[in-house]
Formats: sequence, structure tokens, C-alpha cells
Amino acid sequence: MAETMNDQDMPHGETRAGRLLLVPNTLDLGCLDPVTGAAPDLQQVLPLGVIREAARIGHWIAENAKTTRAFLKRVDQVTPLSQPLQGLSIEELPRPVKGGKGSKDASKSEAPGQAATLASLLAPARAGHDIGLISEAGLPGVADPGAAVVQAAHQAGIPVVPLSGPSSLVLALAGSGLHGQSFAFVGYLPTDASQRAQRIRELELLSRKAHQTQLVIETPYRNVAMWQALLQHLQPQTLLNVSCGLTLSQGFTLTDTVARWRQRELQLPADVPAVFAWLSA
Amino acid sequence: MAETMNDQDMPHGETRAGRLLLVPNTLDLGCLDPVTGAAPDLQQVLPLGVIREAARIGHWIAENAKTTRAFLKRVDQVTPLSQPLQGLSIEELPRPVKGGKGSKDASKSEAPGQAATLASLLAPARAGHDIGLISEAGLPGVADPGAAVVQAAHQAGIPVVPLSGPSSLVLALAGSGLHGQSFAFVGYLPTDASQRAQRIRELELLSRKAHQTQLVIETPYRNVAMWQALLQHLQPQTLLNVSCGLTLSQGFTLTDTVARWRQRELQLPADVPAVFAWLSA
Repeated sequence: MAETMNDQDMPHGETRAGRLLLVPNTLDLGCLDPVTGAAPDLQQVLPLGVIREAARIGHWIAENAKTTRAFLKRVDQVTPLSQPLQGLSIEELPRPVKGGKGSKDASKSEAPGQAATLASLLAPARAGHDIGLISEAGLPGVADPGAAVVQAAHQAGIPVVPLSGPSSLVLALAGSGLHGQSFAFVGYLPTDASQRAQRIRELELLSRKAHQTQLVIETPYRNVAMWQALLQHLQPQTLLNVSCGLTLSQGFTLTDTVARWRQRELQLPADVPAVFAWLSA
Repeated sequence: MAETMNDQDMPHGETRAGRLLLVPNTLDLGCLDPVTGAAPDLQQVLPLGVIREAARIGHWIAENAKTTRAFLKRVDQVTPLSQPLQGLSIEELPRPVKGGKGSKDASKSEAPGQAATLASLLAPARAGHDIGLISEAGLPGVADPGAAVVQAAHQAGIPVVPLSGPSSLVLALAGSGLHGQSFAFVGYLPTDASQRAQRIRELELLSRKAHQTQLVIETPYRNVAMWQALLQHLQPQTLLNVSCGLTLSQGFTLTDTVARWRQRELQLPADVPAVFAWLSA
């Protein structure tokens, strides 16, 4: 079978056991290059070695099957897929349990029967085939679903191999110039205005006490509301960064004090994910 | 001049202002491929687009000039450098102020005259040339020096462009299968045994209360001591991951409960950097 041959010529191929490869996706979900009108070139953000690994994988676990097929079409343009796209197995991750706090965290809010689902998703690895785990953007399991599958792989003794790729959080942190020796990503803030204000003040206090950069993300259509809340509730001396569309041609990262931001004009797009980071003085 | 021509054909070239490009390095500092005996192939971990950008840059700010030249020789093997290595300007970052807490954090312990040094490092950008900022491994400013230069660039209105590359922290987090919706990197723990034990317990409490994955790094020769301290002081149900040499052929990432780790054999190398991560149950 094709997969068995692929497994033989892999660089980590000391063992015949199937592995769980964490395949990074680009950060350009749904974005087209403003110049070419096509999806941006995969080789701007993904290593050739990773693209080649992706081209060999026959079994996928995906946050979204449709965006995974779009990704694989882009892979195919660089390195032909080892088998036709139609022949690949693409299984979607179980949907997270809605409603609960931390509902995106499969490790905590495990649905009944989830262990069996995860075991079934990992069956190809037990049969000796590599599996690719992929999310819609960035690395699976980092501000994205996928951690439960990785944990299940560890429990089953399946080797886990994270592959190098872009992470919007880490690019934003590097781009911010804020403290990179201690930082925390705390996900999404509450959408209720007064709860959000309270959380921003809590996180600013934590940033000051621990001298720790705080990072949050927001769904694009709330970018402007989040920005206004940060400008309103952070202290004037606090350094505040916003990074938007990093790795895209229109991307930017900007840092200034809150006091100066209050005097500056800034147009935040409502259709590109942003990362917000701050460090209390 | 060569740099001026280079600046013209850059993808972000809407403006003629020089930019500060944050250039990722590989994670294989000092490691040779056990099979080939050479440095691992750059294209396994770095995008071609990033290698091409690096090949064009004439002005560098580096954590270490020697390792930067080694990096540029590897770049040259993929994409010929736009000018001879000897003709490139490579300035080293000012050494951090020794001794103080957070002494690796240039944003806090600013040495007298540092502002002038940073302004001088950024002079080529003000003259219209792109500058590459690079550390010995991974992304500059993330668990590595460089943040002060990035902050100075923001203050001077110099565009900052972080480029996609490997981050040992993010690869470890993805590979761990631990909670990726909330995580904190807290740098190095104290080396004194009793202070370290106290800090481990503090961070475990924080992990439990905030349901937040905690990540730390250690200098390789202390890997085993750190591992033993974690096994001794974390609670038995806590999930503990160790990731070592990710992106290298001998790299691995493993997660288990502390209770089970106490029963398992694990050989940690003393010459490869490790990331340790845990999540309290």
C-alpha cells in the first residue's frame, strides 16, 4: 500500500509505528493575496520539509475537512500528493461541548464516548500509518482544537511529532517587543462589557506583579470593540501591542503606550484575526 | 547600491522605509545530523520565503555574530546571498545587564546609554535599508534577547516584520496535548533546590486555579535535575510533558501523569535544550 511505502522513507522512520504529525496550517484562512487574487504562496510561511511530509500523509484528522482539502490543494502545487485528494481519509475532530467555561478545551469538558471517538480517530496509527492533525490556521492545539487527540496519542504510545510552522501568538509576541521571558496567553476575554473591563484590569495587575506580557485574541468582528476596551481600561503607561494579519502582505504589528494610543488613529480590520498584547510598566 | 535594489523588490515594499525583519533561526544550534554529520537541512524548518528574505538582508543585528555567519552560510546553500558574507554588516546586541532579576529582559534593566546603542543599531533602517534581527535559535525576543531593539524600532516608527519559523515553546505546547487555550511561559526556575521546589508548587497551584498550562525551559546540563525536581514536587495526577530537541531527528515529546512518570524510565540528554510543561488536574 502507498502509505506503507511512505512510512518507510520518512526521516523519523526508525520505527514502523504510525506517528501523529502536527501539521501547521498557514494563517491566511479565507484571505487572498490582494495583488494576485490567489491564496498566498505556501512557501512563504511553511518549510518545504513540512510541505513534503503533508504530501505523503494519507490519513488526516482535521478541525475542518473543507479547509484541509483547500490546504492539500496548495500542498499539491508544491509537492504532488502521494495519492489523489479524493482517496485521502479526512476525519473531522469531534465538536467541542458547547456552553461550559473552557468549552474549547477537550481535555476538561470530555463528552461521553469521546475516548472511543479519539481511539477510532487514531486507529490508522495503530495500523502503522502516519496521521496528520491539522487545524484551520497555525498549529493544532495552540489556541485551537486538537489537544485531546494529542493527549490520546500519548496515552496510546503513538509518537507525536510537531512540525515547524507559523503561530500568530508567537509572531505577535516577537513583533511586540514586549517581555518575551515571561508571557501568558489567556484566550478570549468575556464579551460582556463590564466583565471584560474587570478581566482587563485583573490581567493588567497580573502583568505588573509578575512582569509578564499578557496576550489575548478576539474574533475579527470584535477587534474594534476589544481595542476600545483595552484603551479605556488599561493604565496610560502600559505598553500595548496589536498584531493583525501577520504573515499576510497587509499584516502589521504596532506597539505604543496606552496614553499615546489614545492620541493615535488606528484602523483595525473586522475580517482579519488580531492578537492583543500588553505589558504593565 | 545592492541594498537599495533589494529593498525595491520586497513583497512588503509599499514603502521605501527600512524595516526590522525578525528572522527565525533553526532550533539545532550546535547539533549535527547523526546520519549525515552536517548541519540539518534549513528547509526542514524554515520557509523558502524566509530563507530568500534572509539572503537579501545586508544589515544584521545578532545575538551572536559567529552563529549568524554559520546560519547565513546555510542560507547561501539554498539561496545565494545578495552580497558576500564578508561584506555584510553584523552588529551584536548589547549584552544584558548581569545579576538582576530579569536581567535577560532589556526592557526592564536598561543599561545607561542603551537608548543610544539601540538607535545606532537601527540607523541602517532610517537610511532605508532592511535590518535582520536574529538570535541563536528560534525567534528573537521569545525566550531570547532582542525585545529592546524591537521596542526601539516601534518607538522610531520603523516597521517590524516577524517572519514565520520554529519556536521550541510552541512546538512543545502543541506536542504536549496540554491545554492550549491558556498557557504561560515563565522562563527559568531558580537553581537553588528549595527555592525551585517552592516555585514549582506555586506554579502548580496557578495551573490548577487558572486551568493554565505552565511551561519552563532549562539549560541542557540541568535537564535531569529539573526533571527530578518536577517529579518530586508536582502532584501525582498532574500531567507532565517533556519535549527535547524538537525539529531534530532525535527529538521527542512525551506526556504522562507524574504518578506514571515516577514508574517510567526516561533518559534526558544533557546537551539538548528541553521544554517542560505541566497542567494540574
